Amino acid sequence: MDQDQTVTPQFEANGDVRVPAFTLPISRLVSEEAAAAQRLRATVPPVDTTGIDAAPLRRQQINAYMAPSIAKLRETFAVEIEAKTIGGVPVLDVTPSDGGHDPDRVLINLHGGAFTVGWDGVALVETIPMAVLAGMRVVSVDYRMAPEHRHPAAIEDVAAVYAGLLQDYAPGRIGIYGGSAGGVLTAQTAAWLAAHGLPQAGAIGVFGAGGVPFEAGESAYVTGYIDGAFPPPPADGSAPPDITKGYFNGIDADDPSAWPAYHLDVLARFPPTLIITGTRSIDLSPAIYTNSQLIKAGVRSTLIVGESMGHCYYYNLALPEARDAYDAIVAFFRENLN
Amino acid sequence: MDQDQTVTPQFEANGDVRVPAFTLPISRLVSEEAAAAQRLRATVPPVDTTGIDAAPLRRQQINAYMAPSIAKLRETFAVEIEAKTIGGVPVLDVTPSDGGHDPDRVLINLHGGAFTVGWDGVALVETIPMAVLAGMRVVSVDYRMAPEHRHPAAIEDVAAVYAGLLQDYAPGRIGIYGGSAGGVLTAQTAAWLAAHGLPQAGAIGVFGAGGVPFEAGESAYVTGYIDGAFPPPPADGSAPPDITKGYFNGIDADDPSAWPAYHLDVLARFPPTLIITGTRSIDLSPAIYTNSQLIKAGVRSTLIVGESMGHCYYYNLALPEARDAYDAIVAFFRENLN
Repeated sequence: MDQDQTVTPQFEANGDVRVPAFTLPISRLVSEEAAAAQRLRATVPPVDTTGIDAAPLRRQQINAYMAPSIAKLRETFAVEIEAKTIGGVPVLDVTPSDGGHDPDRVLINLHGGAFTVGWDGVALVETIPMAVLAGMRVVSVDYRMAPEHRHPAAIEDVAAVYAGLLQDYAPGRIGIYGGSAGGVLTAQTAAWLAAHGLPQAGAIGVFGAGGVPFEAGESAYVTGYIDGAFPPPPADGSAPPDITKGYFNGIDADDPSAWPAYHLDVLARFPPTLIITGTRSIDLSPAIYTNSQLIKAGVRSTLIVGESMGHCYYYNLALPEARDAYDAIVAFFRENLN
Repeated sequence: MDQDQTVTPQFEANGDVRVPAFTLPISRLVSEEAAAAQRLRATVPPVDTTGIDAAPLRRQQINAYMAPSIAKLRETFAVEIEAKTIGGVPVLDVTPSDGGHDPDRVLINLHGGAFTVGWDGVALVETIPMAVLAGMRVVSVDYRMAPEHRHPAAIEDVAAVYAGLLQDYAPGRIGIYGGSAGGVLTAQTAAWLAAHGLPQAGAIGVFGAGGVPFEAGESAYVTGYIDGAFPPPPADGSAPPDITKGYFNGIDADDPSAWPAYHLDVLARFPPTLIITGTRSIDLSPAIYTNSQLIKAGVRSTLIVGESMGHCYYYNLALPEARDAYDAIVAFFRENLN
């Protein structure tokens, strides 16, 4: 310990910080459940993706990985799930089984999964608790993904579903939310609606993401080493491996339809926004940067940064921090969809 | 670089993370000015505090350190500064020289300085730009500090000034803000007012701080190693050196008058709150935790986390990020003091 304290970061003339090895103990600001989960990480082997780089296999693997969580969620949160199409796009229409959902409001869910996977395992994880806790209908979009499709195919699908729902709902009573890639896509959709003459949604939730690439900020490095859920990008500035399998190939790095948070004029047309991230989450920097830029653009942005929380921590409802996040999400949509 | 990428964090059974040495490059989400400041760190020697542990010497040193910044601020922001007492407590009364400040609203500033130093150098850094940018009168409080005094002496002084100002202002038009220890004291004051039958202020700004101790969360460790402005606490959980020189001696770690963010019932009586921190700031975890708990308590809390920004980064108005922070602060007080 004494040794640790004499080791300090070294600053290079190019701005690099040489961070020494150090020990990061459990924060005193996390729940007992979160602390227990951190202790368990010593025993949890990483998910083995060897030999399943192909998208169909990855999709199967993610769905298999999510299946036990979904079974548990369905025990706790009773929902009806109906497969249909809206605006020509396949969706899952998720409603609380008790039938008591808000007749005037609807949420559109955009699932996570690096623009390549996540249908429908991640979509179900993101929608089942929300439908019950919010008491709202949730429409999850089976948007087109890579490697078969490229940007902006996913947004076009979301916009088609949104346009379909406009026949039954006032735009101010439609909320859009998603985690990880779905959080990115949520921000992109808000930009798209404004740019294409569609009325803006009432409120959006950008979770585990921001309106810039995941590797744009320092969190990609810091959380790569303190958390390790995602490997850090190369410190020499060279391009990291593309986990989106080419979804943004050929798209300019400054394109506002892909990365709206670089453009204050685009952000200025966003509706009230809730952003959720965590200090051990790869998306910390994209999320907090997007929040700062939204506030600069005059938009009401609410930011929650979970202490010691990892990527999309709110998926795990065993954590009190996740339940707090859901409470905040539900309160946010109830307040702003009016 | 290839070597870096094969080095991953190791998780211990007690929840410790063994973080490997790594290189943290400049974020692509910071301004050119911030990037330049990071490159300059290689050439800036640390402040030498050898042999000046005694409070009077430390106070002189901090004031001397701040003097050039204050001179520069006074060139940019023309203010009148009057020393007086309010409620029997010495204050500096800072107003824009053009005389055009809001007659109905006032801000109370609580300066930073570890509850031991900062009067009046840090107070001037925190008030001169604010008076002009907000167009408001700013009253900075010369509250009692350690080692001569102990908690809650500082709050008592702030409450006396607040009570004095209530003779001229509606409580909803009084804002309170401060950085670092002053941010802590701002949160403590909001708790104190509600607990002592005083009307709540209209809005508060907790900057570079939260309503829990600086060393409570993981940011004290992470930023100790990635930023180094403050040394990290011992990783074995033993008590860090007390930079507040005994100001909280004898105070229970759970005392809501000292650490209100541990108590939802206390937070529920807070006014709208703006919290500003940064990803390279020791106060990141206290700040984001306090924001999460305020939202849980049903209080409107706005959080800004500056990408790659250090402790009280908004002091340095050469940074565009600092000017953005000031814009947000001014907009926040204008919106909420009514």
